[in-house]
Amino acid sequence: MKQKLALLIDKLDENNLDSILITDLNNVRYFSGFTGTTAYLIITKHNNYLITDFRYIEQANGQCPDFEIIDHNAQDVELLTKQLENTGFENETISYKNYIKFEKLFKKLICVNDLITTLREKKYEDEIINIKHAVKIADDAFTHICKYAKEGMSEIEVANELEFYMRKNGAEKLSFDTIVASGARGAMPHGYPTDKKLVSGELVVLDFGCFYNGYASDMTRTLAVGNVDDKLIDVYNTVLDAQMSVLKVISDGQSASLMHKTAQDIIDKKYINTFGHALGHGVGLEIHELPTLSPKSKKILEVGNVVSVEPGIYIPGLCGVRIEDLVYITKNGCEVLTKSTKKLIYI
Amino acid sequence: MKQKLALLIDKLDENNLDSILITDLNNVRYFSGFTGTTAYLIITKHNNYLITDFRYIEQANGQCPDFEIIDHNAQDVELLTKQLENTGFENETISYKNYIKFEKLFKKLICVNDLITTLREKKYEDEIINIKHAVKIADDAFTHICKYAKEGMSEIEVANELEFYMRKNGAEKLSFDTIVASGARGAMPHGYPTDKKLVSGELVVLDFGCFYNGYASDMTRTLAVGNVDDKLIDVYNTVLDAQMSVLKVISDGQSASLMHKTAQDIIDKKYINTFGHALGHGVGLEIHELPTLSPKSKKILEVGNVVSVEPGIYIPGLCGVRIEDLVYITKNGCEVLTKSTKKLIYI
Repeated sequence: MKQKLALLIDKLDENNLDSILITDLNNVRYFSGFTGTTAYLIITKHNNYLITDFRYIEQANGQCPDFEIIDHNAQDVELLTKQLENTGFENETISYKNYIKFEKLFKKLICVNDLITTLREKKYEDEIINIKHAVKIADDAFTHICKYAKEGMSEIEVANELEFYMRKNGAEKLSFDTIVASGARGAMPHGYPTDKKLVSGELVVLDFGCFYNGYASDMTRTLAVGNVDDKLIDVYNTVLDAQMSVLKVISDGQSASLMHKTAQDIIDKKYINTFGHALGHGVGLEIHELPTLSPKSKKILEVGNVVSVEPGIYIPGLCGVRIEDLVYITKNGCEVLTKSTKKLIYI
Repeated sequence: MKQKLALLIDKLDENNLDSILITDLNNVRYFSGFTGTTAYLIITKHNNYLITDFRYIEQANGQCPDFEIIDHNAQDVELLTKQLENTGFENETISYKNYIKFEKLFKKLICVNDLITTLREKKYEDEIINIKHAVKIADDAFTHICKYAKEGMSEIEVANELEFYMRKNGAEKLSFDTIVASGARGAMPHGYPTDKKLVSGELVVLDFGCFYNGYASDMTRTLAVGNVDDKLIDVYNTVLDAQMSVLKVISDGQSASLMHKTAQDIIDKKYINTFGHALGHGVGLEIHELPTLSPKSKKILEVGNVVSVEPGIYIPGLCGVRIEDLVYITKNGCEVLTKSTKKLIYI
């Protein structure tokens, strides 16, 4: 926590700010450790304050040893804010209503877009431990579902079983609504599960993950139901080739947009215009965070980034294939956190 | 949909607005029927527009017959907004960043706090059908859990089973993180489930619900594990008395604050300072919406409101009891939507 706060203070200096107002609850948790649902932080160069209501005072005192806890009704808040000259704030998650409230409380609020979200790109050891735990739960759920899922089962049944398995094995909650999309439905990159049954000869895309101790996991595998046509196997192998080619070169110092291009070029050679989304995204306290592996990204990857690598091919009316691992960027390459096999599994 | 839009136009007239910008996705769904995750509405006295991106154009055309669908990149958006003079907007859910974006797009944005949230207080028949379905799934889950939950099981196991049951029986998702709080943990009104096991002699608070077709349910029951002390039974009966007393008098024309006081007075007579939250809240597209049954509320209840009635007693170190039904306000009383028994059940 102290290291995160020290880096934040450096950023305040760079931006000529004497303080910052942090209202986004993920960022509140990131800097203070507080896990409740009502609080904001005021961090100055000399002190750290967490402001919450009476329900959370005790919890905050326990969770946030580096912070002075203030009741949100106390006059202390105004005494504090009136001493500050230039206070940064985050514009993406604060509501207009709350902005107006804080604008009255502070002398001068200055928008600091991305200051904190970019700090969060580089993960600390304790964060990696939690992410690995969340990844392990998802990996185990995949092993389970490969034995459980059968021809004739509905997409919803498969999705429910994945979710129940993760919850039973310690997941706090799902990272996002589980995707199970079979046959032609696989061509929708975000296919919610339906009553449609798994049919022999189809591919099924499973995209799922969970939260553990505040941190998310995210993985995708594509299964074959019964015997599938060689055409589908070729689509699968092309996605796998694209995914593996990125894993071979991704590392500290590589450009995020080049990583996208590496996958895109392989797919375009055989299946042009079938890969329409970004290659990947950061994962941490949020399921989608920075950095983004997309054509427009200016990011140069760094040691400590955790990103998904998830190329896909979507052929309307026929099928979808996506393969996704979470990877941790290292000095000379990456550690693939997702351990599940990428060999095509037949159920 | 047409009736909702007509009432909205009346409100625009009352507020001297020629148009309204709707960015909150629940409100987008309420007025247009659109269920995707990216869209906003511009509603004028003469026409209704839904603006979304290319992924959702087809879906919006299917779901929103009363709306003209516009691609968010099209110049048509600016042509439209520049014709408008006074446009209302919702300040609670719009981010500061988006507000700044829209401020540039429109001639004049005027904050219309609560205009739409109060319109949503009165439910239509199609909304009631969905709420009743969500209530039925929760009621059935309660029947199931009364047979399933046993001494020695952990709070998490009970919570998971409630959730799995609801999902298997058609719930889209949970209304909120399920609460299972046993023994002294019941004294925390929002006790998340833990590894703590159910012990004979304790009470257990179960607070849960689900979404069905966009609409939420919410119910609470308190169970007894094995034989419990008469002291706990008296607490239970006092909460039940408070809850039933409200159900007897709640109706169209009653003041929301008086409903709270009715329960509070009964509890205060025997257990002063043990009921620290509001008696209830509206339920619909959101799990917490207007009207609120609290001491400060100015609301006079109306036919069509759907509210929770959920008094509780919380005694630190000893126990918590809460009993909650969803009720639909009628001309001469109410229809209790939640059908589960309120007789103390021993597991």
